Amino acid sequence: MTDRISLALVGIGKIARDQHIPSVAAGADFDLKAAVSRHGKVEGIENHEDFDAFLASRPAIRAVSLCTPPEVRFDMARKAIAAGHDVLMEKPPATTLGEAEALAELAAKAGVTLFATWHSRFALGVEPAKTWLAGRAIRSISIVWKEDVRRWHPGQAWIWEPGGFGVFDPGINALSILTAIVPGRILVENARLSFPANRRQPIAAEIAMRTFSGAPIVAEFDWRQEGPQTWDITVQTDQSTLRLSSGGAELFIDGIEKSAGPDREYAGIYERFATLIRARESDVDFQPLRLVADAFLCGERLEVEAFED
Amino acid sequence: MTDRISLALVGIGKIARDQHIPSVAAGADFDLKAAVSRHGKVEGIENHEDFDAFLASRPAIRAVSLCTPPEVRFDMARKAIAAGHDVLMEKPPATTLGEAEALAELAAKAGVTLFATWHSRFALGVEPAKTWLAGRAIRSISIVWKEDVRRWHPGQAWIWEPGGFGVFDPGINALSILTAIVPGRILVENARLSFPANRRQPIAAEIAMRTFSGAPIVAEFDWRQEGPQTWDITVQTDQSTLRLSSGGAELFIDGIEKSAGPDREYAGIYERFATLIRARESDVDFQPLRLVADAFLCGERLEVEAFED
Repeated sequence: MTDRISLALVGIGKIARDQHIPSVAAGADFDLKAAVSRHGKVEGIENHEDFDAFLASRPAIRAVSLCTPPEVRFDMARKAIAAGHDVLMEKPPATTLGEAEALAELAAKAGVTLFATWHSRFALGVEPAKTWLAGRAIRSISIVWKEDVRRWHPGQAWIWEPGGFGVFDPGINALSILTAIVPGRILVENARLSFPANRRQPIAAEIAMRTFSGAPIVAEFDWRQEGPQTWDITVQTDQSTLRLSSGGAELFIDGIEKSAGPDREYAGIYERFATLIRARESDVDFQPLRLVADAFLCGERLEVEAFED
Repeated sequence: MTDRISLALVGIGKIARDQHIPSVAAGADFDLKAAVSRHGKVEGIENHEDFDAFLASRPAIRAVSLCTPPEVRFDMARKAIAAGHDVLMEKPPATTLGEAEALAELAAKAGVTLFATWHSRFALGVEPAKTWLAGRAIRSISIVWKEDVRRWHPGQAWIWEPGGFGVFDPGINALSILTAIVPGRILVENARLSFPANRRQPIAAEIAMRTFSGAPIVAEFDWRQEGPQTWDITVQTDQSTLRLSSGGAELFIDGIEKSAGPDREYAGIYERFATLIRARESDVDFQPLRLVADAFLCGERLEVEAFED
């Protein structure tokens, strides 16, 4: 058996408690030694309030997992890399492409592992979907990602601020699956972004893209969906229809369920992080963030009804 | 003497006539063999109306220079690369980062030269400014890029469309100089983009950036400047002040003119293109476009007075 890798978790909020802590505890790869958070605490391990003080006092902790909101992630990642730690970053990796690419360069120079995670890529149906699609001719792709922001992001003001990306916060999950299962680059053709009159980020978006071989892709993101929630990707090939439902958890081929089971997204993330650390490699794929940036860059802006939480 | 490189010019509009044709004619590197344009014609050489027909009929022409508006450039560049030509692209290289990066990959695979030009980088003061700044400690940078859109883009509807980038069309020239003279990555911190009520692209923008070592950079772009036009970059070091004026043509150190002379931007572009072709290399630096995409991605949007041409 391999030794467990010592780990510190930074940013003890909802996603850390719901996903990171239980996944680390259930896995065999990491030993959670410390938590760093201005407000949250984790029982039974050492807790630090200040990130700089943590870095100075605990250089022997090998890996650092950053679960804070994106706007503070760049500075923390930069400092953790400079201190020689291996670093895992929640999605999105940064608030700009420039920051993301700078971190990848710094990690490469420092010889540490950097893992820019996209949790939806570890949903159960994604890997079999990728395998099934390999070598098949894609005719068209439709993405429908519609959820109720009041239900999933209650009171989270940062999602409406610059760097929060609005409806692209969930939408980037769909784009992370899309870029994982479709071979070759995806290109943005145009986009329509709907901004509530009182908000700085879009509440809905339609993005027209294409695969590198020219198959059309249409994505509809909407945060105003009440009732049933939809996170579906449908790929039409020349013979069949592949559908990923429930954010990638369920895979159907021509309507027949091929893959389903309990959620293992964050278990998969930490297994991959351990593999990367042991191989001294990084995984820094910024394609999903680049697609969002390109949608903002070439997108048409519409003003829609004000949104109140 | 080296043989001249056979060249076709694609897109015979204002920039081709004002800059490309005279620069190629005055230089010693290229032999202009053909023009490709749906509307424009060049006297004394063969003219093609259709790009695909040109590619099919004249495979022996080695280099292709694309001076069309950005929205058609990707498809033309892709086809020219696939046909084995060396390709020069006017700025901006594409309407999205995804397209730009895809072209760089295609050119590398095909073993042809791709040159994503930024003409302002060839302004007379830029190279000496870069040399002077190397090794000096930068304290702050101010960019003021204010011009009258009615004077410089009369009736050019594409600048207000997605992919036209609005005031970033001139602004990206400043960003191309900035990224050439400052060592290390530039990061966007935030931005305010002013959209006229009746237009899809910004007419003004303020962008807060920083150098990789943390020095603040403020850029003001405005297309509503009547009277004197301003294209200035001022760099404060710990000892002195460097100023590039007139879009990089004039360099001043502490108010004393160090470099000035007749415009050679496009002469410099074609000399560099010839050097790249002979060395079998590419020059594909998309940093200026990435800064624009990051400004759109994290920027706050303001609505301002409608703009009529």
